[in-house]
Amino acid sequence: MEGGVDYLIDERKKAQFDVEAMKVAWAGSRQAFELSDRIAKLVANDPIFEKFSRPMLGRKELFKNSLRKVAHAWKLIIDLRLSEEEAKLLRHYIDEPAYTDLQWEMFIPAIEGQGTEEQKRKWLPLARKMQVIGSYAQTELGHGSNVQGLETTATFDPQTDEFVIHSPTLTSSKWWPGGTAKVSTHAIVYARLILDGQFHGVHGFIVQLRNLENHTPLPGITVGDIGMKFGNGAYNTMDNGVIRFNHVHIPRNQMLMRVSQVTREGKFVQSDVPRQLLYGTMVYVRQKIVADASKALSRAVCIATRYSAVRRQFGSRNGGPEIQVIDYKTQQSRLFPLLASAYAFRFVGEWLKWLYTDVKQRLEANDFSTLPEAHACTAGLKSLTTSATADGIEECRKLCGGHGYLVSSGIPELFATYVPACTFEGDNVVMMLQVARFLVKTVSELGYKQPVGTTAYMRRVTALMQSNCAVRTAEEWLNPGVVVEAFEARSTRMAVACGQRLAKFENPEEGFAELSADLVEASLAHCQVIVVSKFVEKLQQEIPGKGVKRLLEVLFYVYALFLLHKHQGDFLATGYLTPKQASLANDQLRILYSKVRPNAIALVDSFNHTDHLLSSILGRYDGNVYPKLYEAAFNDPFNDSDIADGIHQYVQPMLRQELHSAKL
Amino acid sequence: MEGGVDYLIDERKKAQFDVEAMKVAWAGSRQAFELSDRIAKLVANDPIFEKFSRPMLGRKELFKNSLRKVAHAWKLIIDLRLSEEEAKLLRHYIDEPAYTDLQWEMFIPAIEGQGTEEQKRKWLPLARKMQVIGSYAQTELGHGSNVQGLETTATFDPQTDEFVIHSPTLTSSKWWPGGTAKVSTHAIVYARLILDGQFHGVHGFIVQLRNLENHTPLPGITVGDIGMKFGNGAYNTMDNGVIRFNHVHIPRNQMLMRVSQVTREGKFVQSDVPRQLLYGTMVYVRQKIVADASKALSRAVCIATRYSAVRRQFGSRNGGPEIQVIDYKTQQSRLFPLLASAYAFRFVGEWLKWLYTDVKQRLEANDFSTLPEAHACTAGLKSLTTSATADGIEECRKLCGGHGYLVSSGIPELFATYVPACTFEGDNVVMMLQVARFLVKTVSELGYKQPVGTTAYMRRVTALMQSNCAVRTAEEWLNPGVVVEAFEARSTRMAVACGQRLAKFENPEEGFAELSADLVEASLAHCQVIVVSKFVEKLQQEIPGKGVKRLLEVLFYVYALFLLHKHQGDFLATGYLTPKQASLANDQLRILYSKVRPNAIALVDSFNHTDHLLSSILGRYDGNVYPKLYEAAFNDPFNDSDIADGIHQYVQPMLRQELHSAKL
Ligand SMILES: Cc1cc2nc3c(=O)[nH]c(=O)nc-3n(C[C@H](O)[C@H](O)[C@H](O)COP(=O)(O)OP(=O)(O)OC[C@H]3O[C@@H](n4cnc5c(N)ncnc54)[C@H](O)[C@@H]3O)c2cc1C
Ligand SMILES: Cc1cc2nc3c(=O)[nH]c(=O)nc-3n(C[C@H](O)[C@H](O)[C@H](O)COP(=O)(O)OP(=O)(O)OC[C@H]3O[C@@H](n4cnc5c(N)ncnc54)[C@H](O)[C@@H]3O)c2cc1C
Repeated sequence: MEGGVDYLIDERKKAQFDVEAMKVAWAGSRQAFELSDRIAKLVANDPIFEKFSRPMLGRKELFKNSLRKVAHAWKLIIDLRLSEEEAKLLRHYIDEPAYTDLQWEMFIPAIEGQGTEEQKRKWLPLARKMQVIGSYAQTELGHGSNVQGLETTATFDPQTDEFVIHSPTLTSSKWWPGGTAKVSTHAIVYARLILDGQFHGVHGFIVQLRNLENHTPLPGITVGDIGMKFGNGAYNTMDNGVIRFNHVHIPRNQMLMRVSQVTREGKFVQSDVPRQLLYGTMVYVRQKIVADASKALSRAVCIATRYSAVRRQFGSRNGGPEIQVIDYKTQQSRLFPLLASAYAFRFVGEWLKWLYTDVKQRLEANDFSTLPEAHACTAGLKSLTTSATADGIEECRKLCGGHGYLVSSGIPELFATYVPACTFEGDNVVMMLQVARFLVKTVSELGYKQPVGTTAYMRRVTALMQSNCAVRTAEEWLNPGVVVEAFEARSTRMAVACGQRLAKFENPEEGFAELSADLVEASLAHCQVIVVSKFVEKLQQEIPGKGVKRLLEVLFYVYALFLLHKHQGDFLATGYLTPKQASLANDQLRILYSKVRPNAIALVDSFNHTDHLLSSILGRYDGNVYPKLYEAAFNDPFNDSDIADGIHQYVQPMLRQELHSAKL
Repeated sequence: MEGGVDYLIDERKKAQFDVEAMKVAWAGSRQAFELSDRIAKLVANDPIFEKFSRPMLGRKELFKNSLRKVAHAWKLIIDLRLSEEEAKLLRHYIDEPAYTDLQWEMFIPAIEGQGTEEQKRKWLPLARKMQVIGSYAQTELGHGSNVQGLETTATFDPQTDEFVIHSPTLTSSKWWPGGTAKVSTHAIVYARLILDGQFHGVHGFIVQLRNLENHTPLPGITVGDIGMKFGNGAYNTMDNGVIRFNHVHIPRNQMLMRVSQVTREGKFVQSDVPRQLLYGTMVYVRQKIVADASKALSRAVCIATRYSAVRRQFGSRNGGPEIQVIDYKTQQSRLFPLLASAYAFRFVGEWLKWLYTDVKQRLEANDFSTLPEAHACTAGLKSLTTSATADGIEECRKLCGGHGYLVSSGIPELFATYVPACTFEGDNVVMMLQVARFLVKTVSELGYKQPVGTTAYMRRVTALMQSNCAVRTAEEWLNPGVVVEAFEARSTRMAVACGQRLAKFENPEEGFAELSADLVEASLAHCQVIVVSKFVEKLQQEIPGKGVKRLLEVLFYVYALFLLHKHQGDFLATGYLTPKQASLANDQLRILYSKVRPNAIALVDSFNHTDHLLSSILGRYDGNVYPKLYEAAFNDPFNDSDIADGIHQYVQPMLRQELHSAKL
């Protein structure tokens, strides 16, 4: 409760489980819950972090305000001696894209992963104390997905022992790097290495962009902002930049040289550190993206669920109250699967965290055996969760009817800030094509190589291809083994079918290109197996708290049976299900929605989102929607005056039929 | 061509049809084409209608600029003596939500439809000359979809012969009416009529809101803007308002009295004009929404298609150019169905225009027989086309990779302006539930009543239920009859299955509520029959121009087989198709994509969109994307200075570790 009357109290009383225990289950542990809760409140109670007025600010003001928040946060981090983990949470709860995201999530990790010991010793302390501010300049105007196609050059000059960083074409201009347009003093610039006229692949270089004294760009560097992005405030707090380099010299030791080196003589040397090490960072970044997906989706779902309980429309009997829109089955069939997805993504994200640790340990022990599988699995989960989250946020907005279209609903800003996650860190379709490559390979090797990790289920290929589902009643769908087997069978059959069709092509690459849309569908089916299975694994663990596990089970079935219904075509086409069985699953789904219904508000309360984080009048904890919408309208600066600017000049002459003589 | 080098010239040369003839086919007739073309160019060449900088403006400036455009447009309309049709096109091409939309699309039509002859004589000339500016105030804070639940009251006072308009509760505040917050002098206010303490339903009243001399709100009226909406510029050029009435008196003759009257004595009289007449307007409005859907979707598709031909990524051989992303099958499988949908919606919209005329004529002849069907059909098509368009625009944005996220791509603004179409004029789910009611009724009466209009195919219920698809090769799918039959069979079977399940409920209303999610799916299937059939009907007409009809046939099959693949589950579950047949349809789809490919640019050129309308660097006619993106970035006002506001204050102290003493 955040004070005052609670208009949702009746809803909260309906809960059939222990909300406090569910909060812990959602957070991962009691300790994690307490930590998040403490930092969330710290942010929520600090007026400097106010963000409700953000969409009303012009770009410059918005940006300045964001710089202020970052500085204030840094002061807090120092004053309160926050740990790195706490600082990260602080940034999360401030909930505003800013240059520090690049500093901590890209610049520092890149140096940690790709720098030599000496480079780490020099740069990491500077960065961690914010004495330099770094960004990550990979993408160019002409190249994003195809990193090997980058055009920026880094030519070694043996005379001066320097690299010359240069943008030879317009399309080689760096384009998109966050934090770069106005703030960062340094950037890791990815460029093609040229030694003695020969290309040696794309590498990262630490390039100073600005004078540390007066912040002006260094000679040879042209830098600017690439312009407004989607949404009002949204991602416009970030200064995504364009950079052109005109023969900029940097010392040789600013090439990141953990894996490959250039010697004083300009020789290219490959160290014995395996290239694969670099993939570790990728797994880390994607793991974070999946965790963020569940956070973003849970915010939208929380808003739409609370508002759906407040909103009443139609069905008043004898002058009594109307029906809460959350009671309509259509509303439930759109909302509850998203609620279940938020939980599903949360748990698969938790598992990915474990996977990252596992991969790291193996890499350190020079065991690369699981890397391709981990790589495909994280690429696929990145794609699956971010696409579903982006679509889900917009669906939540629509679930709020007209009022969802107001920025004060909190959803438009959430959507606009979120959607680039479908594109950055790997375009979602390009990611699924990577999964497809891995799947095709896995399937083609099934005869003689045991699939590992998340593809291990394909070891049972014969059984999965042959025996069909045995469900005869709606009840029988309430069995995790039955559900998982259905997803495994569908995925295996789709992958095998793709493999067979590919085998008919003389040129495998042509076949892959030709069938790529189908391969993407098979990849999605495989990734859904992962999410569904990891949810089941979670349920096999001990989960304390009255009713908590039971509710999570309900959500698991909602998630899985909703997907089954949505992708019914696959399950039927592969012959694993009969139409009757698919229809029974759908019947069960309706029953499950009724089980979610009384718990819906408590299930979104369990996310423990503060009103500050939600920044939504419709999603207020107390449900006091209408008076607050009304109040916010009249507080909008546009209502400062009854007569808006322009009325005298452009409207009154029209009303008076005097437009012909007016100056427009 | 709009001048300069054409970077897409090679693409244009590939076209296998006559683009000029296709432009005519798209526009509907040569005359319609020439008219649109002329007005589009008029707008594009007038600097006052510049809209590219819109997202950079603050709300007040944005609004003022919009008022200026409207005034300038009105001046043009008078000076050039534009017809009503030309004026409507002018507003369309200015492409900026403004109070005139309400004046011409809501206020005037409502008086035309609901006013008495006397009321029309008084108000229409004033409105048509812009001597009064009217808006449409139906929705309240507490009620949108449920119009019968509106709380504003209009109480007749026999003493003064006036109605007293009043907002008895906070939730009765009018909320959303466009044009109202700052501009409109009058509004049609929907309120519950109270005569002598008795309710007599909800009616429309013409209420003056502002003093015509000085534009201030009249006594008893509190009015304001409801705040920022989704997007940067987008719908924020519109002043959606909140109004509260405190016992506002209006003359009795300002109730719209065509259908019901209140006499001088305060008696409620129902005229012999049938209530159904009011539905005519609804058909008109929805017909326009469907037409707008094809326009909006075609804009997004045009941008994404042109950019996909410009953009190259991966696959360079021996240093040659990389592959155009439009050549990737995944890109095609996402983009081409949307291209085909734009055409499909265009043609169904054309047919709806005819339907509107038909309905009007019948209404005038007191023939109400087709009204329920027309009502359901327009509701369903409104829902189908707006949902598909909203999703399609966002997909087009994603198809542009990172650059699609820039406002200068034109897509974010298009999306943000478009999405409310899914909610206003009938929430899309509520609309589909209306279709469902009609379908359920149609199916239940099949034994003794012939279904009419778009449900006429259900007369063949027995055949459609019994005989299954006969397709044996991918080729055989290229038969309009075969395709339409498949959609009809699937829809009939789903509707009949719903009917059978409903029959098992004792209380039909309970059954309807319980099965509503499935009913919505059946309704969508029925609406798809309409779109597919109307496309076929179009193809049966004469369509002049080399290759034009052939290409439209290709697009028809793309649209239909894409839907068939997407909803494969329905086709298989109802037993009409075998998995093999569904898979053959999918094979054919891939072949069709190859047929679209060389014509893709010409097919989007055929929309005849000006660069002004697209307002997109990625979608430029000449394909000159990169230099223009670069130029636009450096023209952004945020790049006025190298050192942004706030750097000295908030960033430099951090870099110098002097934050502790800085004032934040
Ligand atoms: C908000 C935001 C912040 C960003 N921040 C940074 C940053 O800090 N630093 C940085 O370096 N970059 C940054 N980026 C850039 C980002 O990494 C790229 O946009 C991303 O990698 C996608 O690449 P692209 O834009 O070139 O898309 P493209 O590759 O051009 O994609 C366009 C279309 O082509 C398709 N396509 C491409 N290749 C293939 C293929 N082989 N097969 C089939 N289809 C294909 C895609 O699916 C897509 O539909 C940012 C981007 C955004 C939007
Ligand atoms: C940009 C914009 C401009 C507008 N302009 C105007 C204007 O000029 N004048 C005006 O009067 N109004 C205007 N409106 C208001 C608009 O008409 C309403 O928003 C619209 O009618 C939807 O109603 P609602 O907002 O009450 O949604 P709600 O009905 O509250 O919908 C909320 C949710 O409940 C669901 N729901 C509601 N009823 C049912 C049911 N019976 N069964 C199942 N589910 C149900 C919906 O599907 C939705 O998911 C505008 C709105 C917008 C966004």
